[in-house]
Amino acid sequence: MSGNTFGKIFQLTSFGESHGLAIGGVIDGCPAGINLDLDSIQLELNRRKPGQSAIVTQRKESDEVIFYSGIFEGKTTGTPIGFAIHNTNQKSNDYSHIKDSYRPSHADYVYDEKYGIRDYRGGGRSSARETASRVVAGAIAKQFLAKVSINAYVSGVGPLQLEMDPSEIDLSKIEMNPVRCPDLKMAAKMEKYIKQIRKEGDTVGGIITCIIKNAPLGLGEPVFEKLHSEIGKAMLSINAVKGFEYGSGFSGTHTKGSEHNDLFNTDGSTQTNRSGGIQGGISNGMDIYFRVAFKPVATIMQNQETINTNGEKVNMQGKGRHDPCVVPRAVPIVEAMTALVLADFLLIKRTNKL
Amino acid sequence: MSGNTFGKIFQLTSFGESHGLAIGGVIDGCPAGINLDLDSIQLELNRRKPGQSAIVTQRKESDEVIFYSGIFEGKTTGTPIGFAIHNTNQKSNDYSHIKDSYRPSHADYVYDEKYGIRDYRGGGRSSARETASRVVAGAIAKQFLAKVSINAYVSGVGPLQLEMDPSEIDLSKIEMNPVRCPDLKMAAKMEKYIKQIRKEGDTVGGIITCIIKNAPLGLGEPVFEKLHSEIGKAMLSINAVKGFEYGSGFSGTHTKGSEHNDLFNTDGSTQTNRSGGIQGGISNGMDIYFRVAFKPVATIMQNQETINTNGEKVNMQGKGRHDPCVVPRAVPIVEAMTALVLADFLLIKRTNKL
Amino acid sequence: MSGNTFGKIFQLTSFGESHGLAIGGVIDGCPAGINLDLDSIQLELNRRKPGQSAIVTQRKESDEVIFYSGIFEGKTTGTPIGFAIHNTNQKSNDYSHIKDSYRPSHADYVYDEKYGIRDYRGGGRSSARETASRVVAGAIAKQFLAKVSINAYVSGVGPLQLEMDPSEIDLSKIEMNPVRCPDLKMAAKMEKYIKQIRKEGDTVGGIITCIIKNAPLGLGEPVFEKLHSEIGKAMLSINAVKGFEYGSGFSGTHTKGSEHNDLFNTDGSTQTNRSGGIQGGISNGMDIYFRVAFKPVATIMQNQETINTNGEKVNMQGKGRHDPCVVPRAVPIVEAMTALVLADFLLIKRTNKL
Amino acid sequence: MSGNTFGKIFQLTSFGESHGLAIGGVIDGCPAGINLDLDSIQLELNRRKPGQSAIVTQRKESDEVIFYSGIFEGKTTGTPIGFAIHNTNQKSNDYSHIKDSYRPSHADYVYDEKYGIRDYRGGGRSSARETASRVVAGAIAKQFLAKVSINAYVSGVGPLQLEMDPSEIDLSKIEMNPVRCPDLKMAAKMEKYIKQIRKEGDTVGGIITCIIKNAPLGLGEPVFEKLHSEIGKAMLSINAVKGFEYGSGFSGTHTKGSEHNDLFNTDGSTQTNRSGGIQGGISNGMDIYFRVAFKPVATIMQNQETINTNGEKVNMQGKGRHDPCVVPRAVPIVEAMTALVLADFLLIKRTNKL
Repeated sequence: MSGNTFGKIFQLTSFGESHGLAIGGVIDGCPAGINLDLDSIQLELNRRKPGQSAIVTQRKESDEVIFYSGIFEGKTTGTPIGFAIHNTNQKSNDYSHIKDSYRPSHADYVYDEKYGIRDYRGGGRSSARETASRVVAGAIAKQFLAKVSINAYVSGVGPLQLEMDPSEIDLSKIEMNPVRCPDLKMAAKMEKYIKQIRKEGDTVGGIITCIIKNAPLGLGEPVFEKLHSEIGKAMLSINAVKGFEYGSGFSGTHTKGSEHNDLFNTDGSTQTNRSGGIQGGISNGMDIYFRVAFKPVATIMQNQETINTNGEKVNMQGKGRHDPCVVPRAVPIVEAMTALVLADFLLIKRTNKL
Repeated sequence: MSGNTFGKIFQLTSFGESHGLAIGGVIDGCPAGINLDLDSIQLELNRRKPGQSAIVTQRKESDEVIFYSGIFEGKTTGTPIGFAIHNTNQKSNDYSHIKDSYRPSHADYVYDEKYGIRDYRGGGRSSARETASRVVAGAIAKQFLAKVSINAYVSGVGPLQLEMDPSEIDLSKIEMNPVRCPDLKMAAKMEKYIKQIRKEGDTVGGIITCIIKNAPLGLGEPVFEKLHSEIGKAMLSINAVKGFEYGSGFSGTHTKGSEHNDLFNTDGSTQTNRSGGIQGGISNGMDIYFRVAFKPVATIMQNQETINTNGEKVNMQGKGRHDPCVVPRAVPIVEAMTALVLADFLLIKRTNKL
Repeated sequence: MSGNTFGKIFQLTSFGESHGLAIGGVIDGCPAGINLDLDSIQLELNRRKPGQSAIVTQRKESDEVIFYSGIFEGKTTGTPIGFAIHNTNQKSNDYSHIKDSYRPSHADYVYDEKYGIRDYRGGGRSSARETASRVVAGAIAKQFLAKVSINAYVSGVGPLQLEMDPSEIDLSKIEMNPVRCPDLKMAAKMEKYIKQIRKEGDTVGGIITCIIKNAPLGLGEPVFEKLHSEIGKAMLSINAVKGFEYGSGFSGTHTKGSEHNDLFNTDGSTQTNRSGGIQGGISNGMDIYFRVAFKPVATIMQNQETINTNGEKVNMQGKGRHDPCVVPRAVPIVEAMTALVLADFLLIKRTNKL
Repeated sequence: MSGNTFGKIFQLTSFGESHGLAIGGVIDGCPAGINLDLDSIQLELNRRKPGQSAIVTQRKESDEVIFYSGIFEGKTTGTPIGFAIHNTNQKSNDYSHIKDSYRPSHADYVYDEKYGIRDYRGGGRSSARETASRVVAGAIAKQFLAKVSINAYVSGVGPLQLEMDPSEIDLSKIEMNPVRCPDLKMAAKMEKYIKQIRKEGDTVGGIITCIIKNAPLGLGEPVFEKLHSEIGKAMLSINAVKGFEYGSGFSGTHTKGSEHNDLFNTDGSTQTNRSGGIQGGISNGMDIYFRVAFKPVATIMQNQETINTNGEKVNMQGKGRHDPCVVPRAVPIVEAMTALVLADFLLIKRTNKL
């Protein structure tokens, strides 16, 4: 009810504040018998980790996950997988300036109003640090989904846009550059742009595209829990996300039906894929692709006017080490949430027929 | 699990195929003691009804709702509200041509693959007729939310785009024209364009914008069930929707943090509203607004090549009476789904504090 | 949340008051492809129906179920099955005497306090009439569970107790007598006793035993949703139920571990079955059996002192046609709820392993 | 779905195996603003702890709980409360004898069949050690329920039965003796009996009664989630429980309606309380009481024949330190699960009315 659990069968329940003792979660409903590669889970965490390149926040966080249960002799046992990531970077004195003030376009104010109390240390529960737990669960979901490939990449940074058909991307290039853009020339431009923005003490938004290959036909439930409704919800639950579109998306609204319809090949595949691999909410076996919009990070290194908890005007300047652009580090989060949705629907699909 | 229930406390469970005996649903968790105005529920249904104007499908469906339970002496009793809308327009012979063939960009093919069986009469469960049940439930949710105003309107039809700040729209003009566009000049252009598209036997996509005023602060749960994640999911669950954005949306990705942040007034309101009334997933008391992208209707009155259930190429032409553009009739559906999300979060909010 | 939905995958959402227009429900998550025998569904309803014998209430209710959706050409389609049973016996004037008074040991008083409003016609939502919807859903679950046999029978009426090992009951005798007790001599005694109680204008409690044969091994989830926890919850949700025990039950508390443990045969079956077919919350392939305690019906044909809605003492006498003993008609309800639990766990079991 | 989450609003998700790194859980939906007394949480854990008296298992487990999140400056914040109890007593070599054999009346065999894998160290997930997490969550629920008193006590050990009206028990005597029986003479007899059973290398079952005072009227939802259905489910989910009855229970089935009905006082209270404080599934403001049956612990210190994983007969003798009778240590577990149910319904009740 409080929205800290994601999924229906393959479920992640997440806990933790950015500057508490630990963040972590419980993965329940993961089928028994998966040979878990723990290194590849840590690898996914490292893709999200601060300090991984010159264009992301330089905070030091080791982000090592400890598993408490649910894994035995290298395999999942079907029982819940409890895990924690200890917060080694607890400098609560860094945050004294936000104890009594509300950062603009952050959740501080609404938390105070909603709960009457707020863990003001570094954003508390509203910090994107929480997404590390999602990456852990998503990494396990990926191993369950072994045959399905899920790849996200940066397709927009501020005004710089990558215009390429997602199905024609060379996915091997994504991890070759710190921006995670598969076009290396564009990646270089984006990197340069982000560095400039950072110098200005500013931040910038961006877009992540995700493409899923080899997803089985039949994922998604036809009415309220369409495959794209759940992927959309998953994406919109990531910090800073402002929009989601799949297949032809917003630009498809300009087209006519005669242009937009995907005609069938005799094997049931389609000649075009404006549907984005989903028809009537159900995967049709074609590539699934979608785009996710991220706003610029709200914490900027410039002076801003804001209010304190007494409703008085005060001045505030971002402190600490923050991301000038969130999308490079959000790529593994987009993949993780996608994996959670697909793992869940793959299990639900087992119950569809007699 | 099968995704025919929406909501956590204020819940709609929906049933029904387009050409079965009836569609309907059960609304559970509606608080006791609401004085229901049944006429205004029927009014909402009429806004969605076929045949209401020259630019929508001319099918005849009376769409009269019967309530079976949960209402006593004009008030909700706290027990589940069962209801049905009988299908008076069952002409199953109309649909013989799609029994053995798969309409392009429809759900026919994936249903057969997923379930091994498909009610082929007029789209069956995948028909947008199902949304009538949502409108009934949404109309009741609206009455529960009496103080909150929820207004959707058409802001795009094919290439025609209304560029207006949602907070400055004259909402009283929406229902003054068959397109449901609040700018009457633009509405006339859109109407003309839709008529032309229809003449071509074609269809066109569009965009609906929705604005919520007077929503209480504190709606939405901060992690997986953010207010905008649930609204996004709700919108993406509507037939033909391809995208969702709120606040600054996709265009916000081009901006810098220093441009995008909403600075506070001393009363906690904000000077700008790029956040779209939601910060950290929680409503902040400002207007909430979002945009929803609808693809062109897949059924066109032109000849299309497709395949039959044996995987052989066949020709198909749309029959019957279909919408050339879905957005005018989708306006009440967008409002209904929005109302369901808000009603649910309003009840959940009651459980936040000691 | 309001508790009108039962089950997690195979779900029944129920609606309806005893004297409203109709009762009914939505069965969601029923797998596609089941050849439904509609007659056997009606047969189950007839086993629950008033007026079926001389020892049950003589109310006239036709209890005919109409299916609105989810069934096509005789098969389930995987979409929700909406259904209704119209109330043909609406004589609301019969109930004027309880409009302003609270019947002892009924739910009238707590409904008024909880909801601030109450449909006072014949018990409204608290009437056992609601269980007809459960019987419909249970009858469909039974067809899904074709290989599993679920048989309930009356094992106690007031002081009359049937002491037989459930696994040795001749199940074919249950339906041979109006009490539904498989020992025909005991059945005759019970019948006589019930008639005598009725003459006194009184009512009496009883016990139903249920035995499940051929349930697959592995049903039930090991911690909070053990097989017996969910069966227990299901039973305790039936009107008038006061207790539940399975396997050795309450009498097992008197034994020692050395007497109680079930030793294995080499095929994994057990030599004894004090576990009642469930170990650690999971079915082990042996017969599952349990007992359910029903209190005497609260409506008696004797004068009782009670209070009215103003808190004043008033006299009340039961009117209309009521059951002197509820257990004969509760047998199909016990079976139906059992079938719902098993169907749900059978589907969940499909998701346990890689 | 996998049943490791309990509750709908106030939720516990539990994880952990008896001999893994840690057990623990996430408490979600706990309202913000509760001043938590952490000592009293540890006190509840100590009531459940091994080694607390001469009649329970002498295993050494420190059972110290660490809270990771959701608590700030001594108060709940409304965000999820993650916690762990590290297993300090991991001697996996103790359990080599059960790696390849199935203990009679334990869950070993069904786990292997259900999941294809089993953490064989000391019962793994099926160990009652898991209930420590429930006690933590229940202790927090108790603090939320400050005005409600929940007291469980031992009312039966093997053949020794305490026959007292639960409403007349002197609750202050429960914790005065190691059996947790409020009649000190009976407690002494029970203690002596348990010691004798232990000498025999055997175990014995028992009964726990629980009484709730000052529960608000209106808890429980009227159909599938009656107050007693959920309490019953909660109790039946505790290891070794075989039965549940509330109010008049099984013995009430012998009575007549004229004897059983609880007549009203003018203030809405009742002159008798055979209903056990619940009518129509909803609390009526009277004391709520119920009884829970526990079978004898399956692990005995006697030689037993059993089978190994190859289906061959083998001999087995219990090793280690086990409880001769589980009920003294189960008292805080019964209270904890009761508290979780009540906390959940108290929050749900806030959503009942306009």
